[in-house]
Amino acid sequence: MKIILVGASGDVGRAAYAELASRHDVVSAGRSSGDIQVDLTSGDSIEAMYRQIGPVDAVISAAGEVEFGRVSDMTTDKFRFGLENKVLTQINLVLFGLETVREGGSFTLTSGILDRDPVRMGTGAAIANGALGGFVTSAAIDLPRNLRLNAVSPGLLDVSADQYGAWFPGHDPVSSKRVGLAYAKCVEGGITGKVVAVD
Amino acid sequence: MKIILVGASGDVGRAAYAELASRHDVVSAGRSSGDIQVDLTSGDSIEAMYRQIGPVDAVISAAGEVEFGRVSDMTTDKFRFGLENKVLTQINLVLFGLETVREGGSFTLTSGILDRDPVRMGTGAAIANGALGGFVTSAAIDLPRNLRLNAVSPGLLDVSADQYGAWFPGHDPVSSKRVGLAYAKCVEGGITGKVVAVD
Repeated sequence: MKIILVGASGDVGRAAYAELASRHDVVSAGRSSGDIQVDLTSGDSIEAMYRQIGPVDAVISAAGEVEFGRVSDMTTDKFRFGLENKVLTQINLVLFGLETVREGGSFTLTSGILDRDPVRMGTGAAIANGALGGFVTSAAIDLPRNLRLNAVSPGLLDVSADQYGAWFPGHDPVSSKRVGLAYAKCVEGGITGKVVAVD
Repeated sequence: MKIILVGASGDVGRAAYAELASRHDVVSAGRSSGDIQVDLTSGDSIEAMYRQIGPVDAVISAAGEVEFGRVSDMTTDKFRFGLENKVLTQINLVLFGLETVREGGSFTLTSGILDRDPVRMGTGAAIANGALGGFVTSAAIDLPRNLRLNAVSPGLLDVSADQYGAWFPGHDPVSSKRVGLAYAKCVEGGITGKVVAVD
């Protein structure tokens, strides 16, 4: 398969790449690194990426940013930031890719654990993750050409635990290997409309 | 209890009002109707409402708008509309109300069925509902002064079926009475962080 992987340089993207790159042609994309540069907040940038790469069998996004903070310190704009930079960005990748992904191909987005197993300061992430879950559940029944759509929703990755573990009391980090397998399940398997939790 | 009910004139708002108004002091609010006018897209308007009404025991929102359409006809802006007008609006009501709701009081928001039981054209709603689910799950563990936070997630209401039923094939409309009870469960009961489905 030919696969576009956006956000390839992050911990989650590296887990997906490690699982898939040995048996597929994975084109890595990122804001400032990878085989090709793309800004998911810009439809023009996404269209240019798809035009440059051409038809593919799968698109994976492991890209997204949210603001962290206690609810009492959050503002409308801080919540909006996550909706713009983790939700609408990944939705853009689907909307602009509907013609580029081949018949029966797939989109796999990335949400995260914080809407089902919340932590303090994580509400910006929880909102974004919930929105992405609603998107894949619903849009999957409404896509053309047998396209499939899923999201991987990983817990805190083992490789991220040193940096972020203090915000996740009692969370058991998940192995990057298992996270990579979840992307393989979505790309190589037949499921659609699913949020694949890796807990 | 003294309760603010925003969106009191809609089908869902009327169901909540019918259940609660006989035994509580319910102040109805809406964009253009009700005891008091409020624009949930404006922090200033929400602050003015809270200042005018003063301390309350509960805030209910039954307000929210999304765009409907097939995924292939949707745009980033149409999805953004629902995030702005159903998600960030209701979040605003919580953020600006943290000081006005009394110790142990509650916020009850309104999501909907379309993120768990999707229909074609309903993806804008599914995204908003999922986001609201993430918000209540996470923010509930992070609120000051024992404040509670839940969402009621009703299916298609019986009274709405004539107008919207064609978009919900095979959905069994839910009674407005049961929807009203769900708001009573959130306001008068002790739960927090829950999405109360009425299917």
